[in-house]
Amino acid sequence: MNFTQKSLTNVRNNIGKYIIKTPVFRFDFIDNLCGCNVFFKCENFQHTGSFKYRAALNAIKNIPSEYKSRGVITHSSGNFAHALSKASNELNIPCHIVMPNNTPEFKKSSVKLYTDNIFECEANLKSRELMTKKNLKDKNLYFIHPSNNTDVILGNSTCTLELIEDYQNLDYIFSPIGGGGLIAGTSIAIGNFSKNCKVIGAEPSNVDDAYRSLISGKIETNTSTNTIADGLRTNLGTINFPIIQKYVKEILLVSEEEILASLNIILNKLKLVVEPSSAVVLAALIKNKSKFKNQNIGLIMCGGNIDFENLKF
Amino acid sequence: MNFTQKSLTNVRNNIGKYIIKTPVFRFDFIDNLCGCNVFFKCENFQHTGSFKYRAALNAIKNIPSEYKSRGVITHSSGNFAHALSKASNELNIPCHIVMPNNTPEFKKSSVKLYTDNIFECEANLKSRELMTKKNLKDKNLYFIHPSNNTDVILGNSTCTLELIEDYQNLDYIFSPIGGGGLIAGTSIAIGNFSKNCKVIGAEPSNVDDAYRSLISGKIETNTSTNTIADGLRTNLGTINFPIIQKYVKEILLVSEEEILASLNIILNKLKLVVEPSSAVVLAALIKNKSKFKNQNIGLIMCGGNIDFENLKF
Repeated sequence: MNFTQKSLTNVRNNIGKYIIKTPVFRFDFIDNLCGCNVFFKCENFQHTGSFKYRAALNAIKNIPSEYKSRGVITHSSGNFAHALSKASNELNIPCHIVMPNNTPEFKKSSVKLYTDNIFECEANLKSRELMTKKNLKDKNLYFIHPSNNTDVILGNSTCTLELIEDYQNLDYIFSPIGGGGLIAGTSIAIGNFSKNCKVIGAEPSNVDDAYRSLISGKIETNTSTNTIADGLRTNLGTINFPIIQKYVKEILLVSEEEILASLNIILNKLKLVVEPSSAVVLAALIKNKSKFKNQNIGLIMCGGNIDFENLKF
Repeated sequence: MNFTQKSLTNVRNNIGKYIIKTPVFRFDFIDNLCGCNVFFKCENFQHTGSFKYRAALNAIKNIPSEYKSRGVITHSSGNFAHALSKASNELNIPCHIVMPNNTPEFKKSSVKLYTDNIFECEANLKSRELMTKKNLKDKNLYFIHPSNNTDVILGNSTCTLELIEDYQNLDYIFSPIGGGGLIAGTSIAIGNFSKNCKVIGAEPSNVDDAYRSLISGKIETNTSTNTIADGLRTNLGTINFPIIQKYVKEILLVSEEEILASLNIILNKLKLVVEPSSAVVLAALIKNKSKFKNQNIGLIMCGGNIDFENLKF
């Protein structure tokens, strides 16, 4: 698949009227703390509270016409389930979600707003995939992977397109890495539309599969999913990995304590509700601020769906 | 004291370069929920996380010159202490804060960033006032009341000035009422610069002194301070009350459950960190939405200093 300027512009035109052009915030406090100029691209204000709505909308717009009446299916316990169910609802396409049986109630209820077709599976990847395959086959549905899918990547790219259009002098954009769909979208936007901006990945040390994959040259997996950044627990996708290899200059790792400290700053000083996955990028910048002195840095705040009941600093 | 167009414009010019022109946010979700067009004036993004910085800055700028080396004093456990200490620090004026000994640590630490002159008193109004008087006299300081002070009111007015300048078609502005300084500032801004906009007060039922005062025509007091909206526990001030009588069309009361439900919406749906006092105005609108159908409504989100550790929905 080639991701060309034209394909990216088409996607943007295709989904523009459905998505929010999210605001970019600046904070003197952060500029002083980090010694550089920081631009927060606030996808927490996107529909369904995360960038995933861009991906879901674009993917739904592009399903083959024979599936429009039967519908789509994905497996996700979090933001993509929420995004795909709302996007499907918006475009009148039936939506089916496979969800682990340990999904928190507040996440389930977000999805239930838009679809009744929720199938619970065991809380492991194998059960997810089996349950998805079974429903896919039985109901003849169209499968959309939450991150490893070209339409998803293209949808994600629109976030960075907006950012670099409004702030053309960015030196770096920091993106979190889970399955790799967001940073792949960021990469193709930068690759096509910016000459000087570089892409930096940010990943929790506890789930550092992308960091290790870049070093070894092949997709590594996580043995644990023990991070507060629940959006980043998934493994790197096969479509995303070569894009990341091509464009991502460096992946920075941060500890759980560093993620929590940054989350604390964003909630209590900046007054923005973001989820821990968003705090990962600020944590990576704060930890490495000497490297980025006086530079113009875009930070993608990927989402804002946080469970306040379980928040402990 | 006359609050004229000229005096308001002067204040704005005087403090403009020190304060943040806070953003105004709109949300389809809220417009649909309330059946009107809602404009959130986000003072949670103001320096020190509340509108109080406007008040503090203006008050500090206007102290008689003989006090500039000796400094100012106030009594506050919350946002005004934080705001006055930072504003004083900004203008190199010594600042003294009288604070109840049950003030939460996170609030104390915000003030300690800017001044070491913190005097602890017992957690009641009498002890506050005694401790303030003693220091005022001993150290020959200048007293600035957190809400019942003309420079404070004038500083507060700049928030509404910004709002109505950018959104000239507002039909109503909702402001919370504690000591009455914010709604008095809102009132003089509307009284001087808007022909059609009306001011609505929002107050917790549990501390409904302003509501009762408007009915009885004299300042009533609260027997309890039992509300989650910690910024609104204080009693109405003598300077603020006649301004409120002149300009405020109506005061709407809301229950603790309604405040919490609105806070939940603002944090979890709108992704803004606001304190319970801010949620009071949205609660008042939601409760009375049939009265305001299709109107253009400005809601002042007065601050964002919330203790997440104690948040329970």
